[in-house]
Amino acid sequence: MGRIVFTGGTVVGAEGSFDADVLVDGERIVAVGTDLPADGAERVDVSGKLLMPGFIDGHTHMDMPFGGTVTADDWDTGTAAALAGGTTTIVDFSLQDVGGTLQEAVNTWHEKASGKARIDYGFHVAITNLTDEVKAEIPRLADLGVSSVKIFMAYKGTPLYAEDADLFEAMQVAREAGVLVMVHAENGDVIAKLQEQALAKGNTSPVYHALTRPEEAEAEATNRAIQLAEIAGAPLLVVHVSCAAALEPIHRAHELGQTVYAETCPQYFAFSIEDLKKPDFEGAKYVCSPPMRDAWNREPLWRGLQLGDLQIFGSDHCSFNFEGQKDLGRDDFTKIPNGCPGVEERAQVLWSLGVLEGRISENRFVQVLSTNQAKVHGMYPRKGTLAPGSDADLVIWDPMLDTTVSTANRHGNVDYTPYEGLTFHGGPSEVYVRGESAYRDGEVLAEAGSGRYVERRFMKPEI
Amino acid sequence: MGRIVFTGGTVVGAEGSFDADVLVDGERIVAVGTDLPADGAERVDVSGKLLMPGFIDGHTHMDMPFGGTVTADDWDTGTAAALAGGTTTIVDFSLQDVGGTLQEAVNTWHEKASGKARIDYGFHVAITNLTDEVKAEIPRLADLGVSSVKIFMAYKGTPLYAEDADLFEAMQVAREAGVLVMVHAENGDVIAKLQEQALAKGNTSPVYHALTRPEEAEAEATNRAIQLAEIAGAPLLVVHVSCAAALEPIHRAHELGQTVYAETCPQYFAFSIEDLKKPDFEGAKYVCSPPMRDAWNREPLWRGLQLGDLQIFGSDHCSFNFEGQKDLGRDDFTKIPNGCPGVEERAQVLWSLGVLEGRISENRFVQVLSTNQAKVHGMYPRKGTLAPGSDADLVIWDPMLDTTVSTANRHGNVDYTPYEGLTFHGGPSEVYVRGESAYRDGEVLAEAGSGRYVERRFMKPEI
Amino acid sequence: MGRIVFTGGTVVGAEGSFDADVLVDGERIVAVGTDLPADGAERVDVSGKLLMPGFIDGHTHMDMPFGGTVTADDWDTGTAAALAGGTTTIVDFSLQDVGGTLQEAVNTWHEKASGKARIDYGFHVAITNLTDEVKAEIPRLADLGVSSVKIFMAYKGTPLYAEDADLFEAMQVAREAGVLVMVHAENGDVIAKLQEQALAKGNTSPVYHALTRPEEAEAEATNRAIQLAEIAGAPLLVVHVSCAAALEPIHRAHELGQTVYAETCPQYFAFSIEDLKKPDFEGAKYVCSPPMRDAWNREPLWRGLQLGDLQIFGSDHCSFNFEGQKDLGRDDFTKIPNGCPGVEERAQVLWSLGVLEGRISENRFVQVLSTNQAKVHGMYPRKGTLAPGSDADLVIWDPMLDTTVSTANRHGNVDYTPYEGLTFHGGPSEVYVRGESAYRDGEVLAEAGSGRYVERRFMKPEI
Amino acid sequence: MGRIVFTGGTVVGAEGSFDADVLVDGERIVAVGTDLPADGAERVDVSGKLLMPGFIDGHTHMDMPFGGTVTADDWDTGTAAALAGGTTTIVDFSLQDVGGTLQEAVNTWHEKASGKARIDYGFHVAITNLTDEVKAEIPRLADLGVSSVKIFMAYKGTPLYAEDADLFEAMQVAREAGVLVMVHAENGDVIAKLQEQALAKGNTSPVYHALTRPEEAEAEATNRAIQLAEIAGAPLLVVHVSCAAALEPIHRAHELGQTVYAETCPQYFAFSIEDLKKPDFEGAKYVCSPPMRDAWNREPLWRGLQLGDLQIFGSDHCSFNFEGQKDLGRDDFTKIPNGCPGVEERAQVLWSLGVLEGRISENRFVQVLSTNQAKVHGMYPRKGTLAPGSDADLVIWDPMLDTTVSTANRHGNVDYTPYEGLTFHGGPSEVYVRGESAYRDGEVLAEAGSGRYVERRFMKPEI
Ligand SMILES: [Zn+2]
Ligand SMILES: [Zn+2]
Ligand SMILES: [Zn+2]
Ligand SMILES: [Zn+2]
Ligand SMILES: [Zn+2]
Ligand SMILES: [Zn+2]
Ligand SMILES: [Zn+2]
Ligand SMILES: [Zn+2]
Repeated sequence: MGRIVFTGGTVVGAEGSFDADVLVDGERIVAVGTDLPADGAERVDVSGKLLMPGFIDGHTHMDMPFGGTVTADDWDTGTAAALAGGTTTIVDFSLQDVGGTLQEAVNTWHEKASGKARIDYGFHVAITNLTDEVKAEIPRLADLGVSSVKIFMAYKGTPLYAEDADLFEAMQVAREAGVLVMVHAENGDVIAKLQEQALAKGNTSPVYHALTRPEEAEAEATNRAIQLAEIAGAPLLVVHVSCAAALEPIHRAHELGQTVYAETCPQYFAFSIEDLKKPDFEGAKYVCSPPMRDAWNREPLWRGLQLGDLQIFGSDHCSFNFEGQKDLGRDDFTKIPNGCPGVEERAQVLWSLGVLEGRISENRFVQVLSTNQAKVHGMYPRKGTLAPGSDADLVIWDPMLDTTVSTANRHGNVDYTPYEGLTFHGGPSEVYVRGESAYRDGEVLAEAGSGRYVERRFMKPEI
Repeated sequence: MGRIVFTGGTVVGAEGSFDADVLVDGERIVAVGTDLPADGAERVDVSGKLLMPGFIDGHTHMDMPFGGTVTADDWDTGTAAALAGGTTTIVDFSLQDVGGTLQEAVNTWHEKASGKARIDYGFHVAITNLTDEVKAEIPRLADLGVSSVKIFMAYKGTPLYAEDADLFEAMQVAREAGVLVMVHAENGDVIAKLQEQALAKGNTSPVYHALTRPEEAEAEATNRAIQLAEIAGAPLLVVHVSCAAALEPIHRAHELGQTVYAETCPQYFAFSIEDLKKPDFEGAKYVCSPPMRDAWNREPLWRGLQLGDLQIFGSDHCSFNFEGQKDLGRDDFTKIPNGCPGVEERAQVLWSLGVLEGRISENRFVQVLSTNQAKVHGMYPRKGTLAPGSDADLVIWDPMLDTTVSTANRHGNVDYTPYEGLTFHGGPSEVYVRGESAYRDGEVLAEAGSGRYVERRFMKPEI
Repeated sequence: MGRIVFTGGTVVGAEGSFDADVLVDGERIVAVGTDLPADGAERVDVSGKLLMPGFIDGHTHMDMPFGGTVTADDWDTGTAAALAGGTTTIVDFSLQDVGGTLQEAVNTWHEKASGKARIDYGFHVAITNLTDEVKAEIPRLADLGVSSVKIFMAYKGTPLYAEDADLFEAMQVAREAGVLVMVHAENGDVIAKLQEQALAKGNTSPVYHALTRPEEAEAEATNRAIQLAEIAGAPLLVVHVSCAAALEPIHRAHELGQTVYAETCPQYFAFSIEDLKKPDFEGAKYVCSPPMRDAWNREPLWRGLQLGDLQIFGSDHCSFNFEGQKDLGRDDFTKIPNGCPGVEERAQVLWSLGVLEGRISENRFVQVLSTNQAKVHGMYPRKGTLAPGSDADLVIWDPMLDTTVSTANRHGNVDYTPYEGLTFHGGPSEVYVRGESAYRDGEVLAEAGSGRYVERRFMKPEI
Repeated sequence: MGRIVFTGGTVVGAEGSFDADVLVDGERIVAVGTDLPADGAERVDVSGKLLMPGFIDGHTHMDMPFGGTVTADDWDTGTAAALAGGTTTIVDFSLQDVGGTLQEAVNTWHEKASGKARIDYGFHVAITNLTDEVKAEIPRLADLGVSSVKIFMAYKGTPLYAEDADLFEAMQVAREAGVLVMVHAENGDVIAKLQEQALAKGNTSPVYHALTRPEEAEAEATNRAIQLAEIAGAPLLVVHVSCAAALEPIHRAHELGQTVYAETCPQYFAFSIEDLKKPDFEGAKYVCSPPMRDAWNREPLWRGLQLGDLQIFGSDHCSFNFEGQKDLGRDDFTKIPNGCPGVEERAQVLWSLGVLEGRISENRFVQVLSTNQAKVHGMYPRKGTLAPGSDADLVIWDPMLDTTVSTANRHGNVDYTPYEGLTFHGGPSEVYVRGESAYRDGEVLAEAGSGRYVERRFMKPEI
C-alpha cells in the first residue's frame, strides 16, 4: 500500500461530475486535482472511465440464521459478491437472540465477520425481542459504533414482531440516544390472517407469498411508523419500500417536513409478482418481503428516486439456495426462506434501468448507492465521497462493460440468481478498498479478513 | 293518535326546501302536498317554521357502565334530553360483557331501554372482547335488527382494545354478513405509553387527557382502519372524528373511491383543548375521547362537513356527573370517566355555528342530523325523511327561538353542562314521534316507554 | 289537462327512493302520498317503473349558426329528440351577434324557440364579443330571466375568444348582478398555434382536431378560470369537462371551499380519441370541443361524478349533418363544424354506463340530470324535483326498456348518430311536461310550440 | 496572481462539508487535498472559517432603464455590492429594445458591463417584444453565450407583456435551441384591471401595489407557464416565487416529473405586506413585483427550499433611489419604480434566517446560492463548485462576523436599504474572483472592469 494517482478519468460525485486526478496515499484520499504531481505515486490510467466513491450497501444479511437454516452467503462469499458489484462497505443486520442482549448480537456478528470480510462493514442491530431491558440497552449502542436499530412490524407470531407500544417507546429512547430507528413496515397482523386463510384454502404456492402481503399492508405500516415517529419526535428509516402505496405516506411526511429516510431495492425494479408465478416452484426464487409487486409500481418508485423521497438504494441481500433451502416451502409458501441475493447486481441494475434509460443522472446514482448511504448510516464523509481525508474506497466504473448474468459468473455462494440471463450495460472494472485493489476484471483480489469494522454515528443528515 | 295536517310551513329536506303541507295519519306520513284537504284532520299551523324529519343520533351511551360507575343518564332522562334537542331516534351502544355474547348485550340493552325510552331506538353492539366466538356471532346480528358493530382501537390494557388481527377478521366477517364496522380510531398503544409517562412525571390534571392522546394517534388509527377495511373489502364508519389530521385519510379514501363513512360531533366545534385547562378541576367536564383539540381544527372539520367527507353529526352523548363521577379523577386524569353530554344540544350547536354562520345550508343540516344518519344506520326511508310512508317523526324548527343553556333548563340528568351560558339561536319548538306530540315549548310530553325498537339493515348507501 | 294520479311506481329523487303515488293537478304536482284518493283523477299505473323528475339539459345548441352553416336541429326537431330522451327542459345558448347586444341575442332566441319548442326552455347568453357595453348589459339580464352567461377562453382569432382582462371584469360584474359565469375552458392561444403548425405539416385529418387540443390546454384554462373567479369572488360553472387533467383544479377548488360548478357530458364516457381515427372521414362525426380523450380519462371522470366534483351532466347537443356540414372539413380539420348530437341519448348513456355498472346510484343519476341542473341553472324547486308545487314534469323510466340506437330511430334531424349500433338498457317509456303526456313509447306527442320559456334566477346553491 | 493555498478551513460544498486545503493556481482551483504541499504558494490561513464556492446571483438588473428612469446601480456599484455579499458571478437581464433585436440587447449590455464589472457575469435576454423575428432569433443566442430568455406574463399594456400564443411558441423554439425559458409569472390582465379599479377609487398609496397583485394572479400564471411548457416539451424556470399559492403548481409539476426550476428571493423572507404600509411613503421602498406577501407564506417557502421545489435563491436586485425615483409614485403607486436592492444582503439573509434558524443546512445554503445557480444557468462546473479545474471563485465565510445594516455601510449606490437596522450573523470576510482577492473585511478590492463575460450553455440539469 502506497501512493496511487488515478489519472484521465471523470470524477462522478453526488454533486456533479468533472475531470480530475485523484491521489491516494495509503488508505486515504489525499488530493483531488488537475495534473496532480505523481511524485513517485503509482499512476493508474482510468481514461474513459468514471471514478466513483465506493458503493455502500446499508442492507445486507450475511451468515444469518432464518427459520432453522442459515443464509447461503457468509461474510467471505457475501463480501466477495459485494466487491464484484462495486460495494466497498456494507452495513449488516446483527440479529439479537430472542433471549439475548443487543451487545451479544454485536459480539456474535463481530465473530462472523472477523477474518472473513473482504470489505469494510458496520452493524445495525435487528431487534427480535423488544423488552424493557432491550430498550434500556439502546443508548449503549453508540459506544459500540452502532447507530441504528431495526424493528419489525411484520412477522406476527414470532418474537421479531414488535407491538406499537414497544416500537413507540423504542423510538423515544432512540431519539434521545441519537440512534436511528429502521422499520420493516408491513402489518404483521393482517398478513398472518391472510396466510392462515390462504393455507386453509390450500393455496400453498409461492405466488401466495405476495398475495397474502398486500400493498396496503405495507402502506399502512409505513404510515403508522411515520406517525409514531412524529409523536416520538424521532427520525425514521423505512427500509425496502416496494410499492407506490407505501411511498405515499413517505412523500406526505416529506411535504410536512418530517425527517423520514427511505430505502428501495433493485428487486422491485427488476422483477414483479409475475415472477412468483413461474412454474416448477421457480417462483420461490423471487420470494422476499415485502414481495415483488405489480409492475406498474415501478414508475412511481422511479419518481420517488427522482424526487428524493427514496434516498437510498440497498440490496437487502439475503441469499438462500434453491436446493435445500427455498424448497423447504414446496408445500407451504410460508416456509420458503424469505430473501434474494442482490448485493452483486445492485449497482448494475440501477445503472442499466436508471441511468441508461434516462431516469436518473449518474450523480443521483452515486447519491443513492454511496453518498446518501454514508450519510444516513453515519459514515460520512469518511465513506461515500471522493474527498480528501476520506477512505480511498473507489469504484472504477466502465460504461462499456457488458455483463450477462449467470449463476456461473456470480461471486457469491448461491445456487441460482434471480437475474439469470439478464444483460447489464456498464459495471465496475476495478474496485479499491482503502487504497488497495480489491477487485479487477471479474476477479476478487481482496483477501478474506481484510475488511474492517466501521464505527458509525447518526447525525440526522438533511438529504 | 289520528290525522294531523301541518300547514303553512316550509318543508326542509336533504334535497331542498319548499312550501308544502304534510299530512300524517296515525304513525305515518301519508302525503306531502299543496293545500291538502284536511278531511277532519287536526290542523297544526306551522307558519314561519321549518318542518324537518326527526333528528337521528347514531351515537349515544345511555345507562352505560364505565370504570365502576354508570352514565348519569339512563334511557328515561337521556331520551327526554334527546327529544328536547329534536331527536326522535337514537342508536345506542349495547356493550358486550367481557365474558358475554353479543346476543346478551342486545338483550341487556333491550331491558335497559324498555319501559323507559321516550323515542325510537336501535342498537349497535360495542364489542369489548373480540374472540373467535364473538366473530362467529356477528352474522347473527342481522336477525336481531342490529346492523353495526363498534370495535375499539384504543383503550389498550382493557378488553375493549382489539388487535389488528381481530379487527381485520371482524371486518371480513362483517362484510360477508352485511354488517357495518364502526371504529373508535385512536392508537391505544401510544396513548397508554404517553399516559404512563405523564403520570410518572406527576402530570395528573385533566389537560393531560388531551396531551396524551395526540392528533397523530387518531390520524394513524383512522388510516389503519381504512387500509384494513380496504384489504377486507368492507365498508367502514369512523366515529367521532375530532381533528384535521384524522380527516385527511378519510378524504384520501374518498378520492380513491373507498366506502368510508365518518361522523363528527358538536363538542369538537364548540370546545377546544383550552377548556381542559379550566381551573378547579373544571377541565374534567370536557374530558371525552378523542379529546377536544386545538381550535384551528374546526375550520378543516367544517370543510369536511361541506365536502361530504363527514357525512353524519352525532352527539357521542355519554354523561357523567361532575360530583361523584368526573371527580374520581381528581388525582389522576386517567380515572376521569370519559364523555360529555350533548344529545340535547347537538342540533342547536350545528344550526348556530353552521347554518347561521353560512357554513352549511339548512339542507345539509338535515342531511347530517337525519337523512344520512338514517341511511348509514340502516333505517332509511322509514326514518330520516318526510316522505309518504315514512314514520311521522317531525321537528318543527323555530328559527326565532333563542335558548341560553343552563344546567337548570336541561332535560337530562347531569349535574352540569359543558355548554353552560352559551346562547343558541334557533331550536325545536315542537317534536313529533310517530304522529304523537312528544315535546313542546320546553316540555317533554312523551311518556317513558313510548319509544320503540327499530330493526336496522345496512344497505351500503352512496352518500 | 286535468288531474292525474300516478300509482304503483317508485319515486326516485335526488335524496332517495320510495314507493308513493304522485298527484298532478293541471300543470303542477299537488301531492306525493301513499294511497292518494283519486277523486276523479285519471289513474296512470306505473307499476314496475321509476318516477323521476323531468330531466333538464343545461347545455344545448339549437338552430345555432356556426361557421357559415347552422345546426341540423332547430327547436322543433331538437326538442323532439330531447323529449325522447326524457328531457323536459333545456337551457340553450342564445348567441350574441358580434355587433349586437345581449338583449338582441335573447330576442333572437325567443323567436327561434317560439312556436317550435315542445318542452320548456331557458336561455344562457353566449357572449361573443365582450366589450365594455356588453359588460354593462350583464346586470340587465336578470330582468330577462337569464341567470347565466357563457364566456369563451378558446377560439382565439374569432370574436368569441375573451381575453383574461375581459373575462375577469365580466366575473366581477356578474358577481354583483347575481349572474353565473360559465366558461368554455380551453387555452385558445395554444390551440391556435398547434392548429397552424399541424396544417402547415399537412396534418389535416379529423384526429388532429384532438391532437391540437391537448388535455393540458383544457386543464390550464380551467385552473385559470377558477383562479380568476376566486379573485373576483364570483361563482363559476365550468362546462363540458372532458378529462382528468381538467378535473384536477376543480377538485382542488372544492377542497379549498370555492364555489365552482362543473358539467360533464355523455360523449366523454361513450367515446375516445380512437373514434376520431375512423376511416373514410368518419372521425368527423366525433369532432366536438373539448375533444374526445384517451379512454383512461373515463374512470377519473366517473370518480368526479361520484365525489360531487362534477355536479351536472349535460349533452352539449350541437348537431351537424355528416353530408354537407361535417364534410366542409374534409381537407382541413379546423373547418369541421364542432359538435355532436346527444340530447336524446344523454340519460340512457348515464343509466347504462353509470347506474347499471354500479358506478352511481339511481339517485345520483337524478341529481346530475335533473335536480342539480335545476339548482345550478336557477329553476329549483319549480323544476328538478317531484315536490308539491313543482311543475308536473315527469319521466316514467322503464328499467326493462332496451334500445338499439340507429339513425332511423332517432327523433332529431341529423343524418347520423355517433351512438349508432349501441344498445342501451333502461329508458323513458313516457314523459310528461307540465301535466301533459309529451312522449310515449317512441312517439313524440307534444306539439311544436307547446314549450314555455322559464325565467331563471341564480341562487348560488350548495350542492 | 499566482499560487495560493487556503489552509485550515472547512470546505462547504453542495454535497457536504470536510476539512481540506484548497490550492489555486492562477485563475483556477488545481487541487483540494489534505496537507497540500505549499510549493511556494502563498498560504492563506482560513482556520475557523468556511470555504465556499463563490456565490452566483442569476437575477440582477444593473444599469437598467425602467419607466423613464434607470436603476440606481450600474455595473460598477452593483458589482461592488455583489462582492460585498460574497457574489462572484451575476447573470443580468439584457433588455431588448422594443424595436430592437436580441443581439442588440446583448451588445448594449456588453457595453454597460465592460470596463465596469468587478465580478464575472453572463446575460439573459429579457424579451420585451416577442415578435416572429425575435422568436427566430432565439436559436442564435447560443452563439452569444446566452442560454436563457425571460418572458413576461405581467405588465399588460406594455410591450413586455407576452400573449400565451407567443410565450408558447417561444417555448417551442427555445426547447429546440436548448435555451431555457424564464417567466415572470403574474397574470397581467387581472393586475391591470385591479390597478385601474384601485386608482379609480383613489387608492394610490404603496400598499395598493400589493393589493392589486393578488397571490392567485401569481399562482395562476405560474400554473399556466408550467402547463404551456409541458405541452411544448420545454424546461422552464419560474423566477421570484413569492408565495405558497405559486409554489403549489411547481410542487405538483415536480410530483409529475416535469422539469421546472424555480427561484425565490430574500425579500420574501425578510419582509411582508406590512412593510408596504409604512407611513410617509416609506412603503415605496418595499415595492417590487411580485410584491411582499402576508408573512404566513414564509414557512411554505422555507419548505419549498427544503424539499427542493425551490432550487435557487436569487436577489432580483433592482435598485432605485427613494429620492427622485421611488417618489415618482407618490400620488400613484403604479408609477413607483418596481424593485429593491438585495444583491449584497442575499447570502446573509439566508444564513441568518435559514441556516442559523435550523431550517436549512450549510450545504443547502451553498446549493441554492451557488451550485444550483451554476447548473441552472449553464456554468457548471466552471462555476458553482470548489472542484479542481473550476474557476477560483471563493468565499471565505466567517460565522462569527456580525453586520448591522445601514445605508452607510452598503457598497452599492442606493440612498436607502430596506434592510436598514437589521443585524446579520455570519458573512463573507474575504472573497476571491478567479484567484484574486476581490473583497476583504468590508473593502472592495477588485477594480472596475476586472470582471469577465461567461459564456453559458444550458444542459437541463437534474437538481
Ligand atoms: Zn425487512
Ligand atoms: Zn432485510
Ligand atoms: Zn369511541
Ligand atoms: Zn362513543
Ligand atoms: Zn383531495
Ligand atoms: Zn356547448
Ligand atoms: Zn406532494
Ligand atoms: Zn427581476
